[in-house]
Amino acid sequence: MSILVVGSMAYDTVETPRERRERQLGGAATFFCLAAGAPAGVRVVAVVGDDFREDDLRLLRDCGSDLAGVERASGCSFHWSGRYHDDFIERDTLATELGVFASFEPRVPAAWADSDYVFLANIHPALQARVLAAVTAPKLVVLDTMNLWIETTRTDLLAILPRVDVLLVNDSEARQLSGERSLARAAAVINGLGPARVVIKKGEHGALLFGRDSVLAVPALILPDVVDPTGAGDSFAGGFMASLAEQGVDRTTGDKPFRTAMLAGTVAASFVPEHFSVEGLLRRTPAEVARRLAVLREMMVP
Amino acid sequence: MSILVVGSMAYDTVETPRERRERQLGGAATFFCLAAGAPAGVRVVAVVGDDFREDDLRLLRDCGSDLAGVERASGCSFHWSGRYHDDFIERDTLATELGVFASFEPRVPAAWADSDYVFLANIHPALQARVLAAVTAPKLVVLDTMNLWIETTRTDLLAILPRVDVLLVNDSEARQLSGERSLARAAAVINGLGPARVVIKKGEHGALLFGRDSVLAVPALILPDVVDPTGAGDSFAGGFMASLAEQGVDRTTGDKPFRTAMLAGTVAASFVPEHFSVEGLLRRTPAEVARRLAVLREMMVP
Repeated sequence: MSILVVGSMAYDTVETPRERRERQLGGAATFFCLAAGAPAGVRVVAVVGDDFREDDLRLLRDCGSDLAGVERASGCSFHWSGRYHDDFIERDTLATELGVFASFEPRVPAAWADSDYVFLANIHPALQARVLAAVTAPKLVVLDTMNLWIETTRTDLLAILPRVDVLLVNDSEARQLSGERSLARAAAVINGLGPARVVIKKGEHGALLFGRDSVLAVPALILPDVVDPTGAGDSFAGGFMASLAEQGVDRTTGDKPFRTAMLAGTVAASFVPEHFSVEGLLRRTPAEVARRLAVLREMMVP
Repeated sequence: MSILVVGSMAYDTVETPRERRERQLGGAATFFCLAAGAPAGVRVVAVVGDDFREDDLRLLRDCGSDLAGVERASGCSFHWSGRYHDDFIERDTLATELGVFASFEPRVPAAWADSDYVFLANIHPALQARVLAAVTAPKLVVLDTMNLWIETTRTDLLAILPRVDVLLVNDSEARQLSGERSLARAAAVINGLGPARVVIKKGEHGALLFGRDSVLAVPALILPDVVDPTGAGDSFAGGFMASLAEQGVDRTTGDKPFRTAMLAGTVAASFVPEHFSVEGLLRRTPAEVARRLAVLREMMVP
């Protein structure tokens, strides 16, 4: 079961109330691949600049990612710079330097047209559409987006949504896209735009799955120490998609395996905030994954 | 199994993004009693002013509350006035007129010394202590408090906590009281101050129970329309305590019945935000309670 992702591979400069880290490895595709892990073997479509470190590419290859769709262009890699507030939830974007991403024209290797699972990470919806068009018959398409695209490229976004099976956004994005304050109504509006399922990420408050005929609420694991939550949402997506692929789910499947995937996503995301950058994902062990999954299930037993 | 509550019986003036309501029935004890419902038959210790309407007292009696501990004093009833932001979560307090509450000296009828369950709603901790001292051997004591008391009467609050079994607060209060950002650490600090269990209310994000040897996360029910969330937290407490009383729980009991009580509290609270004041609680039917409990359980099945 092959997974294809298109999204950013980037460097992030992150300021937290306690520390500042310069140009550490980041980007949606990066976190997605590392969270999905080796058995999934993700096919990556992205662009990096001259400055992208070979060691960082190796990290991704070592976790099973296929980088045949990663172009190296002349210029700087995408660079995001942000500052977290004391609550580690609110953050201000200090700078977004697109670099080689500004002229990114994703090219999907011809051999990847047979991809089963497609994750369209948060980039311009026209680029998401171009990648999706290169895949012949995906079993399942999951799309992430953000306030910027909802505001500035709504037409492009609405054009691709009918081909999306699961929309994966945070609560404010779901509200903005739908114009509804209630998440129940927001999910219903989004269903009408195409995606049969909506996953709403709420950070430390967990995530909701508005399924075909049920709603699931998964709490977040409660972490003693939060250092840097950047990438937790994309890591959720990685764990979620890897679980769906492992289960062989397609768009006709009932909600049950999606519930399982929600737990896998939650556990994957839980490894991110305790360390800077991708460090927590790299330290993850199968034993600790199993332990956290057991804790999470225990938290949900009425 | 008798339940005793001390707390406010009040009138609230509430402004929401859509509507303004003047001097509607409110107060922690009011919501608590109506949410606990008839089978529980709550004993109420409170004070009301000359202006407190007989009809409002009758509402409470009709739901089984015993008002022998409610003093009618000369002056105005407690009056809170607040304005909700667009998100219906943040709110600004516009005015707090204590009225007869300023000189409130709670008197517990002698016959109520045998009360089994005590809910010390959010009032000055010295008054909470006085009420608790009048109960001989409670099976379980639950206490709510707020940022004001944590800041201004911390010594009084710390003095009563060793006699409290369950602290029931929201997430920011738990953080303020403990000085810890992580709720896991906050709960551990609070355990050290006395309460063996901590319930953290998070509004639309649900509630957490830090039990003796487990953590439970209960999501909130997803409401299509929010009109006025005032009183939802106290209604949670009412449903929670009524369930504990019904199950005959005491402080030595394991976590399981507390988990059941968390669901009952969540369902009780869900009736509040869809209407102004206590209207939603009054419209509640056993069939709708059962339906919402089933929905809630379904939301928690992994």
